[in-house]
Amino acid sequence: MERIETLEQLRQWRSRQRQQSLRVAFVPTMGALHQGHLALVRAAQQRADRVIVSIFVNPTQFGPHEDFDRYPRLPEQDSALLQMVGCHALFLPNHETIYPAEHQTTVQVTGLDQKLCGRLRPGHFQGVATVVTILLNLVQPDTALFGLKDYQQFVLIRRMVRDLRLPVQVEGVATVREPDGLALSSRNRYLSPVERQRATALFQALTAAGQLYRSGENRRDVLIDQATGILQRAGIHQIDYVELCDPDTLATAPEQMTDDVIMLIAARLTGARLIDNLLLTAH
Amino acid sequence: MERIETLEQLRQWRSRQRQQSLRVAFVPTMGALHQGHLALVRAAQQRADRVIVSIFVNPTQFGPHEDFDRYPRLPEQDSALLQMVGCHALFLPNHETIYPAEHQTTVQVTGLDQKLCGRLRPGHFQGVATVVTILLNLVQPDTALFGLKDYQQFVLIRRMVRDLRLPVQVEGVATVREPDGLALSSRNRYLSPVERQRATALFQALTAAGQLYRSGENRRDVLIDQATGILQRAGIHQIDYVELCDPDTLATAPEQMTDDVIMLIAARLTGARLIDNLLLTAH
Repeated sequence: MERIETLEQLRQWRSRQRQQSLRVAFVPTMGALHQGHLALVRAAQQRADRVIVSIFVNPTQFGPHEDFDRYPRLPEQDSALLQMVGCHALFLPNHETIYPAEHQTTVQVTGLDQKLCGRLRPGHFQGVATVVTILLNLVQPDTALFGLKDYQQFVLIRRMVRDLRLPVQVEGVATVREPDGLALSSRNRYLSPVERQRATALFQALTAAGQLYRSGENRRDVLIDQATGILQRAGIHQIDYVELCDPDTLATAPEQMTDDVIMLIAARLTGARLIDNLLLTAH
Repeated sequence: MERIETLEQLRQWRSRQRQQSLRVAFVPTMGALHQGHLALVRAAQQRADRVIVSIFVNPTQFGPHEDFDRYPRLPEQDSALLQMVGCHALFLPNHETIYPAEHQTTVQVTGLDQKLCGRLRPGHFQGVATVVTILLNLVQPDTALFGLKDYQQFVLIRRMVRDLRLPVQVEGVATVREPDGLALSSRNRYLSPVERQRATALFQALTAAGQLYRSGENRRDVLIDQATGILQRAGIHQIDYVELCDPDTLATAPEQMTDDVIMLIAARLTGARLIDNLLLTAH
């Protein structure tokens, strides 16, 4: 696996692949890699001849009181994991490589960046949209892959790539879960054993709503109440949102639902804020 | 000259040039072409094997009370002019091609888009930055050329391309002027004969400031006062700004200047708002 730190190294690597007409798939990450990331790499390997992963803990997507400083940074462990799964290149830019001193351009997906997590984390999605645009333009992949666990992020990036006509295909990869259903996340390590147990309620709430919808209950608010109840009974009280949305646009689902909808949950435990989602299919 | 209206036609044209390893230069315009635009095409011909011009009157860079509706649209005349100067392709997208119904992404160059014309035309540079990003990603040229007459726009686009790492070279082309010094502009046609005469004061003010600076006068405010006086004596009283700035960053020049500076003027006549600028070189 090639370790790429400078723009010049990246340019050379990219142009070597181009000369050989090799398709390149790109997986941007913030590191602290887990099986969810490795599933992205494996999906990338199916879709291209070469896979490049970036690790950059992007400061502009963290709020002033969020966990930027304590976000786990494990470059050597990450590098070993990527090597093991057969990743071809690892791009490790430093701050100045992404944001030179004079940097002042931002990308906004107005509307999508205001709802759900965007409402609760002002500026977060502007940070995401901007860094992803920069990374895509630097790496110039044929395909870029994003985890569906961060569902709003996925929809927003897909929208942005279409709107700005970035010449890249965007693909979402299914969430990887612990045996008890908890979605893998670099932030799960912040949870105490008790909270780790509680956290399984997110997936329980999602699957219960899914069953209810398939069984014929199509009232939006009934499904939301049921999921909220499951979270609360598990001892999760700081619920940022439980919402049902159109899977493509994230518009709020109608009161009486007929099509597939996505249920999205965000809740704060003491150690970490967790998010999860599930596509609920109509019966 | 090829006339390109759809994205599929554009994709085919672009990939034909790529297959032949031909360098492509791009000149985005809003049409109503004059010798200033043709100078851009000629400069483009020097720098690449193929030149493509776009004509798109971009609604998002006009303010609610500006001249979007009456902005001159002369596609057949423009097309004939481009054919005459040997342009290879003309891209004429319609509104939906650039902004599909669901479009919601914008690009902002925060800072540069707040000063000078940005202060007086809120949203203007966000419209410019967004449409130029879209056009650059659609056309994927090796080089894109912009007139230095719209100096702030040029600096902002150059900054944006660097910040977002768009894989294109940005180049500015010198302003083309009438024999009496008036900078060519599609909006000059809005001027009455009396105003057309008055409008020459912009270039007179710029050149007088340039002479004064070269002669050793280095106080910013003295140069600005002199230029303002020339405008006023010509009967131009609605002066949006007369400013001296760093040519690269557009930061306000220091009170005692030592380096090259750019003087920028914007003034409103009855028929049209005019802008002009000149690089003043230190003696």
